[in-house]
This record gives sequence, structure tokens and C-alpha cells, in this order.
Amino acid sequence: MSLKKLFYPKSIAVIGASRSRQKIGHLIFNNLVDSNFQGKLYPINPKAKKILGHKALPSILDLRSPADLAIIVVPAKIVPLVLEEVGQSGTKTAIIISAGFAEIGLEGQKKQDQLNKIAQKYDLKFLGPNCLGIINPEIGLNASWGEVMPNSGKIGFASQSGALAAPVIELINESDLGFSYFASLGNKANLNETDLIEFFGQDKNTDLVIAYLESFKNGQGLINLAQKITSQKPLVILKAGKTDQGAKSAQSHTASLATPEKITQGVFAQANIIEANSLADLINLAKLLTIFAQKSLGPKTAIVTNAGGPGVLTTDALINNNLSLANFSKKTTKKLADFLPQEASLNNPIDILGNANEKTYFEACQAVLSDPAVDNLVVILTKQRGTNVEAIAQKLIQLKTKKPLIPIFMGGESVRTAKNIFQKNQMVGFGNPQQALLSLAKIISWQKKTKQKIIKNKIKINSRKKIEKLIGKINRSKLNEAEGLQLLSACQIDTPKFAVFNNQEKGIKTLEKIGYPAFLKVLSADIAHRTEAEAVKKITSKKNFVEQFNKMKKGFPQAEFILSEAITGEIEIIIGVKKDPAFGHLLMVGAGGIYTEVLKDRAFRALPIAKNDAQEMLSELKIYPILKGTRGKKELNLDKIEKTLLVIAKLVESFPQISQLDINPLIVNYKKAAAVDVKISLTS
Amino acid sequence: MSLKKLFYPKSIAVIGASRSRQKIGHLIFNNLVDSNFQGKLYPINPKAKKILGHKALPSILDLRSPADLAIIVVPAKIVPLVLEEVGQSGTKTAIIISAGFAEIGLEGQKKQDQLNKIAQKYDLKFLGPNCLGIINPEIGLNASWGEVMPNSGKIGFASQSGALAAPVIELINESDLGFSYFASLGNKANLNETDLIEFFGQDKNTDLVIAYLESFKNGQGLINLAQKITSQKPLVILKAGKTDQGAKSAQSHTASLATPEKITQGVFAQANIIEANSLADLINLAKLLTIFAQKSLGPKTAIVTNAGGPGVLTTDALINNNLSLANFSKKTTKKLADFLPQEASLNNPIDILGNANEKTYFEACQAVLSDPAVDNLVVILTKQRGTNVEAIAQKLIQLKTKKPLIPIFMGGESVRTAKNIFQKNQMVGFGNPQQALLSLAKIISWQKKTKQKIIKNKIKINSRKKIEKLIGKINRSKLNEAEGLQLLSACQIDTPKFAVFNNQEKGIKTLEKIGYPAFLKVLSADIAHRTEAEAVKKITSKKNFVEQFNKMKKGFPQAEFILSEAITGEIEIIIGVKKDPAFGHLLMVGAGGIYTEVLKDRAFRALPIAKNDAQEMLSELKIYPILKGTRGKKELNLDKIEKTLLVIAKLVESFPQISQLDINPLIVNYKKAAAVDVKISLTS
Repeated sequence: MSLKKLFYPKSIAVIGASRSRQKIGHLIFNNLVDSNFQGKLYPINPKAKKILGHKALPSILDLRSPADLAIIVVPAKIVPLVLEEVGQSGTKTAIIISAGFAEIGLEGQKKQDQLNKIAQKYDLKFLGPNCLGIINPEIGLNASWGEVMPNSGKIGFASQSGALAAPVIELINESDLGFSYFASLGNKANLNETDLIEFFGQDKNTDLVIAYLESFKNGQGLINLAQKITSQKPLVILKAGKTDQGAKSAQSHTASLATPEKITQGVFAQANIIEANSLADLINLAKLLTIFAQKSLGPKTAIVTNAGGPGVLTTDALINNNLSLANFSKKTTKKLADFLPQEASLNNPIDILGNANEKTYFEACQAVLSDPAVDNLVVILTKQRGTNVEAIAQKLIQLKTKKPLIPIFMGGESVRTAKNIFQKNQMVGFGNPQQALLSLAKIISWQKKTKQKIIKNKIKINSRKKIEKLIGKINRSKLNEAEGLQLLSACQIDTPKFAVFNNQEKGIKTLEKIGYPAFLKVLSADIAHRTEAEAVKKITSKKNFVEQFNKMKKGFPQAEFILSEAITGEIEIIIGVKKDPAFGHLLMVGAGGIYTEVLKDRAFRALPIAKNDAQEMLSELKIYPILKGTRGKKELNLDKIEKTLLVIAKLVESFPQISQLDINPLIVNYKKAAAVDVKISLTS
Repeated sequence: MSLKKLFYPKSIAVIGASRSRQKIGHLIFNNLVDSNFQGKLYPINPKAKKILGHKALPSILDLRSPADLAIIVVPAKIVPLVLEEVGQSGTKTAIIISAGFAEIGLEGQKKQDQLNKIAQKYDLKFLGPNCLGIINPEIGLNASWGEVMPNSGKIGFASQSGALAAPVIELINESDLGFSYFASLGNKANLNETDLIEFFGQDKNTDLVIAYLESFKNGQGLINLAQKITSQKPLVILKAGKTDQGAKSAQSHTASLATPEKITQGVFAQANIIEANSLADLINLAKLLTIFAQKSLGPKTAIVTNAGGPGVLTTDALINNNLSLANFSKKTTKKLADFLPQEASLNNPIDILGNANEKTYFEACQAVLSDPAVDNLVVILTKQRGTNVEAIAQKLIQLKTKKPLIPIFMGGESVRTAKNIFQKNQMVGFGNPQQALLSLAKIISWQKKTKQKIIKNKIKINSRKKIEKLIGKINRSKLNEAEGLQLLSACQIDTPKFAVFNNQEKGIKTLEKIGYPAFLKVLSADIAHRTEAEAVKKITSKKNFVEQFNKMKKGFPQAEFILSEAITGEIEIIIGVKKDPAFGHLLMVGAGGIYTEVLKDRAFRALPIAKNDAQEMLSELKIYPILKGTRGKKELNLDKIEKTLLVIAKLVESFPQISQLDINPLIVNYKKAAAVDVKISLTS
């Protein structure tokens, strides 16, 4: 979607522009007037003649030609009326600043729906409502009622919280970095994050996209889009409302729908979106990416420090973020030995001792940077007796390197000058290693993934007719166990031997085919917890069968019954599909059995998935090492589990009327990965 | 141990005091002269007549009466000689600043051992070697060669890294808080962290003890001590070297022995020590504890914010740290409704809107603080149009409250004034919620635990004679499985039925008693992996037994065999005891079976343990909800597992010659918690 007229308007009508200094309609018009914007400004206000030197018009309909952009800052109740006029005027792009819509509840939601209808009628698009506006620093356009003007730069920033813009912009400004655009998303009634990210993604002035979100409006769109963008530009998202309580407060803030954290993590991995864990992380990632995104990154890190303790803390932080200590070549160690004092530690982390001066720092850094075994350099300083912090910082910025260099200078006022020097010279200084290495590790992992080749899911569902028949013949919303197993079996997924019967005699015949032990169950899609309902029993002998069958028959006289082979295995897995309001069909795999609820060891992806996704989902699980085979044990049927995931994905893509599917458990041993029980729900 | 003469010396001899400005011997003497210290100073230097106006003596033996404290700053090789003289002079307390001891390797270690022998000979104690010295701000004593002088205050600080002292002291100083003492621990050859913490613990000037450690020198002593101190004063420790790589770099820094992270966590929980995760966390904890430690704390938190997004982020951070959103009373909500605008959100988090001024902030805070359902208050601000940051900060410090109040003002320069105002008024300002709430949650949890009643382990080991006989009769270092099971059985721990035999006939008789299925195993303490060695088989019938027994007999013709009952259960647990170089006997409980290696779900405590410890160990496990009974399932034998832990603890306390014990698995079902296999090692 082109948002050219949103970010590069030649004329702007501000409906609700006001002379009263307290009003948002004044603030925003004042910002427009004060900024360097070269286009035309039309304050629209029936009660005023002039506002801030600009002639006011009673209505947008009084303009001779349509404005490129209309900004609406009138009370919520008259917004529909005003938007209607915007439509009539021929203006196709609007920003609705006014609050009082979906965020206040059902009544507001109705009013918001009304806005969308009007927009549809006139084929116009709008940002908001309940937002701060937009800024385009390059052309000096401040169409927001915020106070801070961002520096011009390369970061495209979309925020679902207007108030969060202030600290983000301020802290990025202080780092001498800047923004290509800022947009406040508000309630995302019409334009949403995906539209903005798409625009930033295609835009030549934007090297890096960051967003603060409380919900996903068009999840599928975001994934498709991000998969294209993130191979070129990093996309960083800080998602708030991860906990149930957090989601609840997001609901009253911007009328946001909840997305569980694990799902967010899954789709971010799928689309190579970098997840920021906090505001600090978002800002650190933005700073570091501006500098490092185009460099060639890797995990092997050298540490040069004038203090042993911080070296140890940094090593811990390195390992905890899946980075590693670089192993220096003999040549490097020799070089270091040539000028470092005898008491210095030449191994990584290199302790150049408390009295190290700028020359020692420079030479030590130079020596390790020239070692091909070093991907990154972390330089640590604590101010000790005689440490000339400024001189050391000045010297570090003279290092010529294509490798990422992160200075971690610990302390307060005494190291502030150094931080300023770094900021002005394309370096990002930190006060402690945890934050720095967390962000660095994410960037390395993003870049690694951009180089990964995507392998498509080439599974074909061959028995379409059989499946159509199974799904078509029933007029219920759920398949029973036998139907479910037949369906899986038709897709070449392992299942136990099983058969349906309704009397003792047929049951005994069935048992002879299946063998012992077997499971006897009531066949019904409607019993939720069969174990508790005494509707499932393990059968160990014919006598045992007769006894149990007759008991069960009494409890469920109208039912059919199913006997199935008892399969034993090394581990139980669960596989599921469900529909998410934001992302559509989601595929899930996780640890099964008694650990399911406790470990919450699950990985999600949105359909469709690639072969890589199936592999990654499995590798994200805590139980992955068990599947891979720990302690000399053979690998379990990883391939079969992966194949089952791909088949299920393809099945649901082919038959999207499957709204829910739960294989619980998939029993895995060295030969099979067998779906022992399955529940399938359909939408008509 | 009294360290009075270390921190309150009346006279100090500085051996190695120097006129040469570059030398540490100059720096430290200069600090002493420059500081406000009122006692006598004796520079000892055979080559100088006067140093900084003080008459120099050739040797400490030239003093008329012994100095209270000797500070040694001479090259490593002559330190033993000098310490010998210190001993001869009658001085009983020393600080050895000089480096070049255990931290440089074996040779240095030998030299360090020599120092300890000299100390023993003269009954003197010393701090270091390889350290920065000590500071007592109250009496103006700076006996360190550091640059920063701490403010006088209530924090006792021991650091195993001298260089880390600078940023910690600087950042605490900037917060207008201060220290009672600082001590640099160095290699901890003689005085160690436990001695320092003991002194700080007993000291009336110290309200709070913080430490940076790379190793534990006297782990058992630390636990005993901390259990006493932490019921009165908080003890915060930042432990570096948690990862293997980190521990390795600590080794070359201060010659530290590694302690795995899980063990550190276990003993810290046992002694109610607060663990800091980073330098930032250590400083935040120190600041918050100075203010909050004496208040009555709880988890229920109110959030007052002028920005919705940060409110959502803070809610997430709250929940992720096991705190909760307070539910306001109707009265409070009514109060808020009286003065807040209609668009404000009256539910927690309270969004007082972007244009909120100091009055609105004050009234909203006052309203929620008076609600008994509120334990803590978090006040969030982002600078928006018209926000008067300074006025709001000034108003917040006027709030009269006994409840913790944490301001989180997001941004850069624009909120710095507020942070300064808070610092000067016993408040700690933060820039983002994650750090603040992480630290707050730890403080709440510490305080809660101080109120917990300790219930002793009252288990009695009754069959002492039987156990003595079992342990005494063998002349190996390991018990075989049968002996191990007999030993456990003698302590009333559940075991399977089992018997030892050596021929087929006896085997069959045994089988009749035990029933099917049973396990047939070669009885030997020396086969590590019996499954792989074909030394264990499941027996399902008499025929099966004969077959398997004869096969096994061929493989192990000299062996005895054991048959044991096959016990099935809901879950497998592991319980172990091992000896740790720092903490002595450690008890461990964890998830067993295939999940053991993967989940690393383990909890540790040092022996002896209280009943509370056994309960807490279990509740720390990820699998705890399974033991408690999830989803309508009954509770498993939690009591039995707990009892098993207490019995094992008492057993090893009573028979400390047990150096290692591994129950793997303990099979738990609804009736039993049975030790199915056990390995026991003994030291002579």
C-alpha cells in the first residue's frame, strides 16, 4: 500500500485546529507551523478566522482542491461526520487523532466500525483513531502533537503507544542516530502495523524498522511481509501484553486482542523478526543494528579488559547468550606478550591490568581484531587509579575495524564523557555486559537466518477423495476417534491398529487381530475426559475384555466401541492445529504426557510452513536433545516427527475447514511416530 | 572473628610505602595521608627518609610498639620475608596488596601457602594478597589504592574484584547513599568473605551487606553465618563465574574454584541470601534495600501512569516477576473517578492520561496508597506535551507513605532532573520496569522468608547398628546394589522386593516370591552402564528367566545376581548426595528418567537441612506441579519424597563417610516412593 500522501503530503487540512493553547487541535497545528514543512496548511474550524497566521475554513469541503492529507482532531462523537466530509472532499488519506473509540468499550467499537464503513465508501485510508500522528523528519514534517522532534535518520518506527514515542525518540536522538519516519498507530482501525511496516520496508530512506505493538491486526499479512523484508532489513518488534494481565491492560489501552507469548515467539522466528524484550532492548537493538546490520557477524568474541571481575561477568553473559570466547592464534598471543606486562592475562578475556593506558588498550584491541578467529570485540573499562577514560575512548574510535566493537565502560559520571565520544563516532557504549550481549546475540542470529535457504514443504496429500469423503459424510462438527485415525492413516501418518464394533462377539474377533495389550474405548467425539468417565480401559486378556466391555456397555448402552493396539514408545509428543484470530491456522508441536502442562514445552508456526520451520520447531523444544538421542542413545524418529508435522500442515492447508486438530499423544519409538489419539473439529 | 583492628586501627605501618608517584606503595600511602584518618602512620622503606612528610623507618621491627595494622606493598618474592617481620613485630592484622600469588598458577600458590604458614605461626590474620585494600568512610580511613572515596553510610561491601569497587562505589555515591565499610578480598588466602560478612553482620553501623564473589572459600561457614544474619539484615551477593567459561576466567583472576550455578542458587535459598544477577541488579538491590528493607512488603502492586503502553509493559514485568496487580476497593475507584477525566482508566494500571499534571499524579497516588489492598506503588511517566517532569517529581516526594514507591520515568535528559530529585529524597528512580521489578521481587521474597518458621529435620536413624555393620563389613569404596538397598531399607525408605542368588534354582525360588515382571541384574558395584553391558534384563516368565539367566551367567561367570521387583509409577525422581569442595555434603533432588539430562531440573541444599529445605527443594523443581497433581489428578507421594530427602540427609549427617549416594530412579506412584537403584560410595 502506498502511504506516500501520509508521509509526503503537499497539503494538509487540520480539522479541529484550534486557537486554544490547551487543545490538541492547537498543539498539532502549532507543530506543523513550527516544523520545516514546505507544503500548504489549512486549519479547518467554523468558529475561527485565523489560526497561527493561517486563514481558517469552516469545512474541508470549502477547499478548492482536495488536500493530500486530513488530520482530524474533533470530539469522538462528530468524527464520523467529519470523516464523511473528508470523503466528500476527495481527500484519500487521513489521521484520526481523536480518542473515545474501541479503547473505551463496545459503544466506542461501534463508532469505530462506522469510521471503517465511511472509509470504504470513499476509498480512503486513515491512521488511528486514538493516536499521536506521524513525523517525517527528512522533510521537516511534524504532524503529531508530541513534543520531541526526532533527528533525521534511517530508522522507521511504528508505535501502538504514542506516549512511548517520546522516550524512544529522545534516547535515539541522544545517540546521534535518527528516524526516517515515525507513525503512531493508535487503535489501528484502518491502517495497521502491516501497512506501515510494508511502507518502511520498501522505502529507500529506511534501513531498519522498529515497532512497539500491543496486538497483531493482520498477522498473516505481517508474516508474509516480514519474510520478504527481513532478508534485507532488520525488523525489531517490542510486543507488550505478553502476560494475561498485560494483555488485559492493553485491551483497555488500544482495544488489543491477546496473543500468547509462545505464539508471538513462533511467528517471529518464522519471519525472522527480532524480538525486543524491553524498552531498553528495543533501543539497544536499534542503535546496534544501525551500526552492525551490514557487517559480517559471528559469535566468537574477544574481551579486552582492565579489570578481572568485569571480565568474568562478561564471560558469563557471553556464554548465557550463546556466544563464545574466541580462541586466539599463537601469533596473536605472541603479539600480546610483546607489549603487555608479565602479570597480564593473555588468554581471552585479556586482562591488560588496572594501570592500562590508551596505548595498551589500542594495541591489545588491534592485535585481537586482526586475528581471523575473532568475530567481535568487547572492550571493558572500570576507572581505576590513573585511568584516563577520555583518552582511552578517543583512542578506541581510531581503531580501523570492520568487526563489531562494543565498549562496556562501567561507572557513573566518570565514564560519561566516553559514552558521548562513542555516540558521536558510530559506537554504542554500555554500562554492563548483559544488555549489550543480549542485543548483539539477537542481531547475529537474525543475520545468520537471512543466509538460510528456505526449503519448501513438498508433501503431497494423495488421498484427497478419501479425506473429502470422511469429512463430507459427517454432519457433526467433530470427527470421532476412528474417523480421525482413518483420516491420518489416509495421509500416511502412523496409527495403531484399530477397529470399531458394537457387540462382544465382534469385539473378541477384533481383539484377535490386534493382540494384547489393547485399549478399549467408547467411540464418541463428545466425551472430553474419557479416563475420568470410565470410558477407556487397558485390556490384557480375553477374560478381562469381556468383563470390561460389559461394564462399559452398561455405562454407555447406545455407544459404539473402538479397540486399538497399545503402542509403547520412548517419548510422547503432542501435535496440534488451531485457529488464531490474528494469525489464522497455527501448527503446534510440544512435549506430551504428564509433562505437557508443566513444561509448557511448545513451539508454534503459522500455516503454511516451510520444511525449515518444522525442523526449527522441533529444535526449539526443551525435549529436542531427547529426540536427537542423548548420552549415546540412538536418535529417535526425528524424521518421522518432522514428516508428521509437514503432513498435518499440508492437510490443513488443503482442507482449511479443519478448524482444530489435536494428536495427543504421538508416541515415538525407534521405528514409528504413531498418532494414538486424535481429535478433529470442522467448520462448515 | 573480630576485625576491629582491620577497620579501626589506631596505627598503620605501610611496608613498601614509596616516594615514586607511579607505585602502588605511593598511591596507598597518599590515600592514607589525604584521608581524614586520625591515627598514626608509619611508612616503612629502607631507602627513604621521609615519605609525604612522614618519617620513614627501615623495617616494621623498628617500631617501638606494634602497629594495629600492617599494609604490605612490596614485590611478591619478598612478601614472605616481610610478613615474617610483621609477625615478629607483634602486629596481628595485615593487608597484603601485592599480586603474584595463587592467581598466576602453581608457583604462586606455593608462595601463598607459605604466607598462611607464617600467619599461623604468629597468630596473625591478613587480607589479600592481590587486593585493593579497605576503606572505612566513617573514620575517614582510606587504606586502599583506589581512587574513589565512598560516602559514609550503611552498606558493608566486600568485593573479590578490586576494580569492580570503583563503579559500585561511584554509582552508590551518586545515589546519595553510602558505605559503612569496603574491603577488597583478593585471593582470600587467609581472611575470606565469610570473615568479612560476619563482621559486617554484627556491626551496628551496617544495615545491609553486599558482596561480589568469584568463589566460596568457606561455604559451610557462609551458610551458617548467613542463616543468622539474613533474618536481620539483607545479604546480597553477585556471584561471577557461573558458566564453565566464566569460572575458568575467574580461576586466572583470583584463583577461584568453580561452583555450578544451581548449587549457588540452592545454598543462597537455604541461607536466604539475595542473589544479584548483574552489576546493575547489585546496585539496584543495594539502593532499594537501603530504603525498603525495614518496610512491610508484599506483592500487590498499583501502577499509576500517564502512558498506556508503558503501563502494559510494566504489567508484563510485574507478572513475570511473580508480583501481582492490586485489586482496588470500590472506595478507591470511587475516589479516583471523582477527579480523573472520563477517558482515564480507573482499573489497575491507572492511566491518568498524557496531560496529567503534578496534582493529578499526587491525588491518584494518594488514593491508591491509602487502599489496604495495595502493597507497592509504581509511578510511571513519559514526558508528553506539557508534562512538567520536575514538578511531578517534587510532588511525589511529598507523598507520605510507608509503602514502597518506585518511580519509573522513561526517557533521557528530559527526566534526569527527576532522578536527581528522587535520589536526594530516599527514592530510587528507574528508566524501565524490568530492572526495578526484578529487584523489588527479590526483596519481597527475602523479607517473606525472614518470617518463615524453621522446622527442624526430626528424622531419627534407628538402625544404626545395622548400617554400621553394612558399611563396616565391606572393604571396598562402593556398596553393591543389594547392600545399598538394604541400607536404604534399614532407614525405612521404600525399596522393591529383591534378593541375591548365584544359581538357577535359587533364582527360580526368588522369582516365585517376587512375581512378574522382575529385573534380573548382575550384582556388582563396578559396572557403570549395566544396560549397555547386557547386565540387566526384564523377566516376564519362568522360561524367560532361565534363558536370560544362562546367557548372563556366561557373560559374567564369577558374578552374583540380583532379582528385584519391577515397580511402575507415575514419575521418576533422582536423589543424590555428593561432596562439594566449598560446601561439603550437598543433597540434590531432580527430575529423573529420560528428562534428567535434558531438563537439568535439579535443586540443591547443603547438609544439614531443615524440613523447610526439603519442601522448598521440591517446590523449586519444574516438575513440582506434577508431584502436586495437575489437572484434577491426585497429589503424588509428595510427603514420601520429602521424607526420603530428610532420611537421606540424616543418614549422611550420621555417617559422613558416605561420600556419594545416588538413588536413580526413585519411582513415585500414589502408594510409594521407591528407590529402585542406588549407588553408594564411601571414604575411609
